[in-house]
Amino acid sequence: MIMKKLELTDGGRRVLVVAVDKGEDAVTAIHDTAAQYDIRGARITAVGGFHSAEVGYFDRQARDYVHIPVAEQVEVLSLLGDIADNQGQPALHVHAVLGRRDGSTVGGHLLRGEVWPTLEVIITEVAAELTKQVDPETGLALLSGAARQ
Amino acid sequence: MIMKKLELTDGGRRVLVVAVDKGEDAVTAIHDTAAQYDIRGARITAVGGFHSAEVGYFDRQARDYVHIPVAEQVEVLSLLGDIADNQGQPALHVHAVLGRRDGSTVGGHLLRGEVWPTLEVIITEVAAELTKQVDPETGLALLSGAARQ
Amino acid sequence: MIMKKLELTDGGRRVLVVAVDKGEDAVTAIHDTAAQYDIRGARITAVGGFHSAEVGYFDRQARDYVHIPVAEQVEVLSLLGDIADNQGQPALHVHAVLGRRDGSTVGGHLLRGEVWPTLEVIITEVAAELTKQVDPETGLALLSGAARQ
Repeated sequence: MIMKKLELTDGGRRVLVVAVDKGEDAVTAIHDTAAQYDIRGARITAVGGFHSAEVGYFDRQARDYVHIPVAEQVEVLSLLGDIADNQGQPALHVHAVLGRRDGSTVGGHLLRGEVWPTLEVIITEVAAELTKQVDPETGLALLSGAARQ
Repeated sequence: MIMKKLELTDGGRRVLVVAVDKGEDAVTAIHDTAAQYDIRGARITAVGGFHSAEVGYFDRQARDYVHIPVAEQVEVLSLLGDIADNQGQPALHVHAVLGRRDGSTVGGHLLRGEVWPTLEVIITEVAAELTKQVDPETGLALLSGAARQ
Repeated sequence: MIMKKLELTDGGRRVLVVAVDKGEDAVTAIHDTAAQYDIRGARITAVGGFHSAEVGYFDRQARDYVHIPVAEQVEVLSLLGDIADNQGQPALHVHAVLGRRDGSTVGGHLLRGEVWPTLEVIITEVAAELTKQVDPETGLALLSGAARQ
């Protein structure tokens, strides 16, 4: 599923470089990589392209994501976010800015992105574990206040 | 003010993960964190949401920022920048791309961002100190040429 | 050509901070820095401003970039990407989101960006070398499957 993966250590923290293959879903690929390598506290950045995608906008009243379909080939101008732990599973929080043929942009919380021709993802560990907890007001899993200072 | 903060060392460089709480201003929260931990040379990335925000565009003639108000709930698609030192104080240079309900985007130099429901910020030190100096042409504090090569 | 450059080590990996000077081309400056320091596996982020720029959109049928000129002063809201090796030369894969006076955005694969008043670039090594190979379908040099797992 995933073309290239390097695992490197740096002061105990790992760096993974993943080239997601044509036709793969970016969200699934990043999630599966995090699960396989037990990554629970990381920064993610990526650039590349999507053949089609779906991004979300969190509706404050509905407490749910409005789905925004992007049914065209787009450049992935920015894919940025983090990986934490939510009850033993990797929890991805990834946002994307996508660029159309005329340079105009569309973006949101990344729900789905069919990669074409590549997505070059860099995952850098920043902590052994960042913990998420459900926020009662929104129903979203947010970085928890366990370490509040 | 700030929900979660982790301080980790990696070859002498620190990584801070900050979950900015609802209602807090993102710029103030990042500045105060940098001041508290004496961060003077770092990369910043973040994703999350703002209830309202204000971004700037630097007008070359006026040598000042045009203020662009964003009076709606937006996704923080990308918050990217650096922290340096300007006469003993942390100097933030942070730009943001914000996403509206329809996926359209607006962005600029981040002047103010009222967080809702969260802003997950990762600050990674890249140097003990990056130094800013005032550029006479613009009046802006820019990374200085002291180490020009 | 380049205003400031710091070279720091961290577990064997290097971090370079480059303030690109007014009037310089961002792509050339980053490429030349990578060549000078023999950087072949890195993450790049930057913020700043361009006096004018040109970005690209990869046309799937034509197998080439559509050129999108940006003939105005813009904020560099996000410059994100990676550096790999392509037959002994540094291969940049850098995308940019640019912000206009009204906060609207335009973006694409960065082809050219005339810096004004600054571009603050952070280059962090993530591997000794990431390798690119030409993809027959597109003609693009993509991260290679040599380390496929």
